Amino acid sequence: MSTETTEATGKNKNKERDLWVGFDLGGTKMLAAVYDGDYKLLGKKRKPTKGHEGSEAGVERVLGVITKALEDAEVSVDRLAGIGIGAPGPLDVIDGVVLDTPNLGWKDVPIQKELEKEFGCPAVLLNDVDAGVYGESRFGVAKDARCVVGLFPGTGIGGGCVIDGEIFRGSRLSCFEVGHMRVVPDGPRCGCGRRGCLEAVASRLTISSHAAAAAYRGQAPYLKAEIGTDVSDIKSGALAASIKAGDKTIEDIVRAAARHLGTAAGSLVNLLNPDVILLGGGLVEALPDLYSEVVIAAAQKRAMACYRDTFKVKVASLGDYASVQGAAAWARHTLETKKN
Amino acid sequence: MSTETTEATGKNKNKERDLWVGFDLGGTKMLAAVYDGDYKLLGKKRKPTKGHEGSEAGVERVLGVITKALEDAEVSVDRLAGIGIGAPGPLDVIDGVVLDTPNLGWKDVPIQKELEKEFGCPAVLLNDVDAGVYGESRFGVAKDARCVVGLFPGTGIGGGCVIDGEIFRGSRLSCFEVGHMRVVPDGPRCGCGRRGCLEAVASRLTISSHAAAAAYRGQAPYLKAEIGTDVSDIKSGALAASIKAGDKTIEDIVRAAARHLGTAAGSLVNLLNPDVILLGGGLVEALPDLYSEVVIAAAQKRAMACYRDTFKVKVASLGDYASVQGAAAWARHTLETKKN
Repeated sequence: MSTETTEATGKNKNKERDLWVGFDLGGTKMLAAVYDGDYKLLGKKRKPTKGHEGSEAGVERVLGVITKALEDAEVSVDRLAGIGIGAPGPLDVIDGVVLDTPNLGWKDVPIQKELEKEFGCPAVLLNDVDAGVYGESRFGVAKDARCVVGLFPGTGIGGGCVIDGEIFRGSRLSCFEVGHMRVVPDGPRCGCGRRGCLEAVASRLTISSHAAAAAYRGQAPYLKAEIGTDVSDIKSGALAASIKAGDKTIEDIVRAAARHLGTAAGSLVNLLNPDVILLGGGLVEALPDLYSEVVIAAAQKRAMACYRDTFKVKVASLGDYASVQGAAAWARHTLETKKN
Repeated sequence: MSTETTEATGKNKNKERDLWVGFDLGGTKMLAAVYDGDYKLLGKKRKPTKGHEGSEAGVERVLGVITKALEDAEVSVDRLAGIGIGAPGPLDVIDGVVLDTPNLGWKDVPIQKELEKEFGCPAVLLNDVDAGVYGESRFGVAKDARCVVGLFPGTGIGGGCVIDGEIFRGSRLSCFEVGHMRVVPDGPRCGCGRRGCLEAVASRLTISSHAAAAAYRGQAPYLKAEIGTDVSDIKSGALAASIKAGDKTIEDIVRAAARHLGTAAGSLVNLLNPDVILLGGGLVEALPDLYSEVVIAAAQKRAMACYRDTFKVKVASLGDYASVQGAAAWARHTLETKKN
């Protein structure tokens, strides 16, 4: 290639690095999406995570899924400007290392470096819930809010906070572990080993375990007949179907959990005074009206008088794409801010 | 004055506005201090607040105290670059209005405008605890921390958070009302009307009320003999003296309250992952060792394993001057950032 050609294509070459990849590394599935500079979705690829295969195989799957998404988008890898990857914590977001994620079976995996080596562009690691909250605050229901607090009840309870366009971050690690605030002294045992965590009284897994007991006791005929009493089978969809079919006890259980979440939301209103409390995750997606109603009521009750009209409770709107689009946009924001 | 003179003194005239006033508007006393650009204290004035005289007389007192501080510093008012005033919430920090402060007997007082009119320089209103936390994060024990969470147990429990050099602020109002997070479902009634707030189980007033009952029951002989059973008299110094004299029940009461504070601190570590938990206020000043010990132990117990070594618990070091110096520095930071 002659100098002249290089110079002639110089502008073009710069322009070539114009695409961003967002990646969501979930406990059960992974999803990659390729975006242009206007966040138009060009291509995507989804695959089961298969955490039991170990982290080496897991990293290979991540790289493979991104390669497939690029193929789906029909673009070449050298157009990639950066990759944002959301993963469950705890993480070292500075060095881009997944520290210890039992759901994935990963421990001390330097995913950022692996991505950079493979694709020849910078990568940024962030917490998956942070990615979702950032995504909704950039592109979704929380678009115009200055301060968003996200609460995502699932197997555990994830949280995230975006303020003035930045993800709130602690001293080094990713944070906002809202599920491990203590809400009931000497309360039920939590997966983290402590007692009375929000997660221990309001997560989907807690609800499922109470629902299983109710089904066993004959208090939830639909759930008993259609799903059974195995907590592994009682997912968000099953709970929603059971409530719809008239299992009143299941509704009571979910409402009690949602009230705990709403009270915690109210405490966070007093603490951080966000514009928007953003609810997301599978359980909220399956029961958006119930969650909105109960969380608003409990949060209003807990909020101080002067904060009562200062916040809205909203249900996440972008589904799976909140996290991937959020991760892509956060990578871009981080890398472009660093440059300037 | 000729044009030539004006030009010649132009630089000097700019340089003249080089002093900053910090002001702390407390429930019992007010304190003004004048600082030069290096935060050297040039002069000060302290006076009782006398909230019962109403807000009009109160504003006059504020203006008078600042004037006296300027006299003490032997500087003229036209050297003032700005005034920072810390006041108990709730506040409208955007418009600089004290909204409703029962301790002061103030309601909807546009203190910022009053100061600007009187002294001909910009003024900035902020929460008094925020001012203290900001002061310690700029000049005191939390100087090198990127994220500081302050907990100030007093009549109530104040809180503040400084991150990346900024005071954490909610949608419009001052926030971080850590005293009104719910920590005990159906717990004791709080001054705010709700139940189970941190303030209702860990404030100095709560401790004093339990101590008064203990003294009445004969479980605190020193306190009973020296102070009596009137909660109005059982201040931080009295509690410290009672513990020192061997009133074991009083120590138990204070430790139980400090444990609640420490558990809340641990929840905040999981939520915000600060570098420093800063303890301040009269009670902590009177019993720094007890508070450090109990809060560290309880916070470590509540913090998730991955956060356990990421934070320090520190006791505020600047006393009354944390708030005034913090208010002055925050005014300067705010006004200089606005300009740029």
